[in-house]
Amino acid sequence: MHVPTAPQHRFEPRDPHWADKVRSSFARQGAMGLIGAELVDVQPGWCQISMPYRADLSQQHGYFHAGIISTAVDSAAGYAGFSLMVPNASVLSVEFKINLLAPGDGELMIATGEVIKSGRTLVITRGDAYVVKHGKTTHCATMQQTLMTMHGKAEG
Amino acid sequence: MHVPTAPQHRFEPRDPHWADKVRSSFARQGAMGLIGAELVDVQPGWCQISMPYRADLSQQHGYFHAGIISTAVDSAAGYAGFSLMVPNASVLSVEFKINLLAPGDGELMIATGEVIKSGRTLVITRGDAYVVKHGKTTHCATMQQTLMTMHGKAEG
Amino acid sequence: MHVPTAPQHRFEPRDPHWADKVRSSFARQGAMGLIGAELVDVQPGWCQISMPYRADLSQQHGYFHAGIISTAVDSAAGYAGFSLMVPNASVLSVEFKINLLAPGDGELMIATGEVIKSGRTLVITRGDAYVVKHGKTTHCATMQQTLMTMHGKAEG
Amino acid sequence: MHVPTAPQHRFEPRDPHWADKVRSSFARQGAMGLIGAELVDVQPGWCQISMPYRADLSQQHGYFHAGIISTAVDSAAGYAGFSLMVPNASVLSVEFKINLLAPGDGELMIATGEVIKSGRTLVITRGDAYVVKHGKTTHCATMQQTLMTMHGKAEG
Repeated sequence: MHVPTAPQHRFEPRDPHWADKVRSSFARQGAMGLIGAELVDVQPGWCQISMPYRADLSQQHGYFHAGIISTAVDSAAGYAGFSLMVPNASVLSVEFKINLLAPGDGELMIATGEVIKSGRTLVITRGDAYVVKHGKTTHCATMQQTLMTMHGKAEG
Repeated sequence: MHVPTAPQHRFEPRDPHWADKVRSSFARQGAMGLIGAELVDVQPGWCQISMPYRADLSQQHGYFHAGIISTAVDSAAGYAGFSLMVPNASVLSVEFKINLLAPGDGELMIATGEVIKSGRTLVITRGDAYVVKHGKTTHCATMQQTLMTMHGKAEG
Repeated sequence: MHVPTAPQHRFEPRDPHWADKVRSSFARQGAMGLIGAELVDVQPGWCQISMPYRADLSQQHGYFHAGIISTAVDSAAGYAGFSLMVPNASVLSVEFKINLLAPGDGELMIATGEVIKSGRTLVITRGDAYVVKHGKTTHCATMQQTLMTMHGKAEG
Repeated sequence: MHVPTAPQHRFEPRDPHWADKVRSSFARQGAMGLIGAELVDVQPGWCQISMPYRADLSQQHGYFHAGIISTAVDSAAGYAGFSLMVPNASVLSVEFKINLLAPGDGELMIATGEVIKSGRTLVITRGDAYVVKHGKTTHCATMQQTLMTMHGKAEG
């Protein structure tokens, strides 16, 4: 299977600085540095993150830990949502639910996020994780997430 | 508020080595070392983990990242479940859902897990996270999790 | 096991008409009449609903349908949340997650809801369902739910 | 927007009687009759249900009740999963999580379900609900669901 790419022109951004604000917010997340995550792509309502395997990201069988996968997907889906928010607002995860579909067994994890519904206050997203092993890509997790727009409280 | 302590004698372990197998599995999770998590307590159907604050565990506002909180709670709840599993079995997270109740703003995160229903194959748990700031404890997240018992496949 | 009763004095209501507004909103839910649900008790931050078994509430094995159980628990938890809302507001379910712990096999279903966190806009609740068979009570489902307060839009 | 149709040839059924067993199981669900739900289409790994509006399916504002929507989507996704199960097995909902995206305001609700991952024991599905008002279709809910295959226990 292939990792999905950004859907074309599904959403109009409400902030001309959408790309910059996502990139600078991502850079401020200490946890992204800790797990070695990189921001691969951000589009209006879409985000992709990559995270190479390291032994210190593992659970007891040596695969990517479910919580570490969640950390990458929570950020990918959160930044998909943040890309559509109005200026002078920040983003907060209200809740998420993740199903682990296959062991996180591979040399690279790709996390994607896309907006399902962009409301004034709440934003609902879908996130997914794909693990790549010897060039073969496996869908390894899927997430439903709720974000909250904190109006009047710019990030950074 | 106070962090809940282990309920007394709610469950009978099915493996005399329940405590040892939890501790050695925890020690094999590279991700627990990465986030600085320590196993504080394990009882049959119960587990508590602590994680001191570090800047590299943060989201963009400097609080504990929702994914990092999830990583600690997923392990606490997973080991609560694993403590009740039969010998010669390993544990896998099927899915979890977490609500963030308050910002992870503090110097210490405490994650707890307890078993709600311990079936032969599936185990349902509840997990919680409490953040401590200047000695004040705040309930900051709550999780519902499904685990799977992998029979005939001992850990370690 | 016993069905939990209302916790004492955990929350202060913000609307003197909290009990009346819950009861009249419940009475307007056509779906509660359809499934034969009755409002047993409402306290600030707490609600209990009962639903006797009928064959037309069943899934294919003759037990209470997971969706019908969800309907009762969604309302119980929703009214627990609504009981704490300010005047001139209405309540909306944002999302919920339910784990089915045991078959809904019995002559009576009891659904309870309680508030975990009551914020200005979002309210997080826990819901549970208990099935009674020949006088024996079994915990059969547990829910985590997010509600939204719609300010300036009174119900009824 | 349009209601999605069945994806072509994504899954191979493991039981030659997949369509018959889904239809007869659906017919045994008393709750489907109660809410006026009809099985529109079943394909391997896919199912669609329709439910016309009635006042007794409503919440307090007169829209489809979130629990009633969940009941239809839980069945649609459950039958998508059941269509791929081996002979001599029955299906059980382990858990589901639903986000309500828009009010269930319309004359018809369409629920769809599709399989994301079909394992030997656990099956992960996605469900969606679409409400139709004056010919306009709105995506009103999305669900992630876990099903369990009960081997050696045929339905019916």
